[in-house]
Amino acid sequence: MSPAPFADRLAHAVSERATCLVVGLDPVIERLPLESRRAAAPDDDPRVAAADAIRHYQSAVIAAVAPYAAAIKPQVAFYERWGPAGWAAYEAAAREARAAGLLVIGDIKRGDVGSTSEAYAEGHLKGPSRSDAVTLNPYLGTDSLAPWLAVVDATNAGAFVLVRTSNPSAAELQELPCAGRPLFEHVAELVNAWGDARVGASGWSSIGAVVGATAPRALAALRAQMPRAWFLIPGVGAQGGAAQDAAAAFDARGLGAIVNSSRSILYAYGDPARTDWRDAIATAARTLRDELRDAARSAAR
Amino acid sequence: MSPAPFADRLAHAVSERATCLVVGLDPVIERLPLESRRAAAPDDDPRVAAADAIRHYQSAVIAAVAPYAAAIKPQVAFYERWGPAGWAAYEAAAREARAAGLLVIGDIKRGDVGSTSEAYAEGHLKGPSRSDAVTLNPYLGTDSLAPWLAVVDATNAGAFVLVRTSNPSAAELQELPCAGRPLFEHVAELVNAWGDARVGASGWSSIGAVVGATAPRALAALRAQMPRAWFLIPGVGAQGGAAQDAAAAFDARGLGAIVNSSRSILYAYGDPARTDWRDAIATAARTLRDELRDAARSAAR
Repeated sequence: MSPAPFADRLAHAVSERATCLVVGLDPVIERLPLESRRAAAPDDDPRVAAADAIRHYQSAVIAAVAPYAAAIKPQVAFYERWGPAGWAAYEAAAREARAAGLLVIGDIKRGDVGSTSEAYAEGHLKGPSRSDAVTLNPYLGTDSLAPWLAVVDATNAGAFVLVRTSNPSAAELQELPCAGRPLFEHVAELVNAWGDARVGASGWSSIGAVVGATAPRALAALRAQMPRAWFLIPGVGAQGGAAQDAAAAFDARGLGAIVNSSRSILYAYGDPARTDWRDAIATAARTLRDELRDAARSAAR
Repeated sequence: MSPAPFADRLAHAVSERATCLVVGLDPVIERLPLESRRAAAPDDDPRVAAADAIRHYQSAVIAAVAPYAAAIKPQVAFYERWGPAGWAAYEAAAREARAAGLLVIGDIKRGDVGSTSEAYAEGHLKGPSRSDAVTLNPYLGTDSLAPWLAVVDATNAGAFVLVRTSNPSAAELQELPCAGRPLFEHVAELVNAWGDARVGASGWSSIGAVVGATAPRALAALRAQMPRAWFLIPGVGAQGGAAQDAAAAFDARGLGAIVNSSRSILYAYGDPARTDWRDAIATAARTLRDELRDAARSAAR
């Protein structure tokens, strides 16, 4: 039996579990607890040892945040850095998150010509490397997205297209005035075009948008422009955004947005020798889940 | 001893070997010769078998084109599709191409926030997954490039930033009029800013630009705007561009541009059961090398 469209699975998860929290997995070896670094079996290839440490760590993170998160977002850069062993750890993260009842968003930000996008889509939405949804870069335009849309339809997966990102230089190109409005609004128009045929029973589309919490004004404008797009909102936590900055993205039912935090949860333990690092991660996830619930409710009022 | 800056190594290769040809590796299993598909050891994981077939095939391609090409450009999508085994095959392609005296350009089109770009740059410009240069996406702006520039400087590597791509929808965003000129010219200005401090003894910068042969007018304008940037020119061959379309990119010495062809060389054999496929690949590479030499000379006149 094929799963429901991604947009509907996400709406179900956010409603039923009363959380819009996404936990990003950005594992940096130097910041992992000694316990994880020591769990690695000695190996001649330091990349295998790094991947082993990541596997130990991410299993604990997934277990700690599963009660509080709707989805896990592994950032593939921190895995492919370690070569084949890193890639296997990336697949393990997706597998374990799914087994824990979480949706998986592969943060891959790919964007390429059609024949290449087809290969990416086959790899990232099917088979052992698959995610429930991925992030994509729009710079190459519609034909670069078309193979993704075809595989999204075939597998009931989803995609979040970069519209207005959360990093300090995002405005450099994304806010250039183009034919009377910022570039990111042109991208939003494309997201609507790609998403309109992919609205599920929930009223939301499986083609969403990445919109940073660090640009709250843009976020409110984009909510109006893309009324059916799920927003994946990065930038809360280590990047400087607060939960309340995301408020404009939610509808009256508290749906329409999921909010990612990576480092502020992953490394909430400070010095892991002095704290129970699993507890610290779980507490940070629960706290942010609660703050986001308040933000969504304040939007609904 | 650390290598010369990428821009100078590329200038040396193009001058000494009198070729500006780049051969793209986009291995699609269904199009590989039976000989390569049969070379795969039986394996329970079909991805391992696919990666084995690719390894057999790419070794033959590298040997066939090495006399005629300046660089090899593996497209990582066609490798990561096959998971960890595919990633190992990607590393093997880079290793074998280097051993054959070719430069390696990893076609990865990554672009992400700073902390993530750092992980990508460590993986793709250092260690066993390293390339001599990579392709990058500019949509996130300067702080997304900064970690790449730092690793470029530390390793004497290079980068080609997407400016005007070769695909049919490229104009959709890239040619939007923004503050009086097309978006891609704003990106070109950033490429100059990133590249100015990275000009080598050859007079060329290690920060180059991807500019498609399918937009010859834009190509001529961009050559004037970015006088020190190496151009990586895709779109010749299967995508419809002719060697002569790249002419405007060369300087009077025939330097400044390298031209990629992937499918028109990789699959030049048509039906591999009826031809010597290695010969067909070598002949296609030699023919295009000669056409590009003529195009560069006509530009110099």
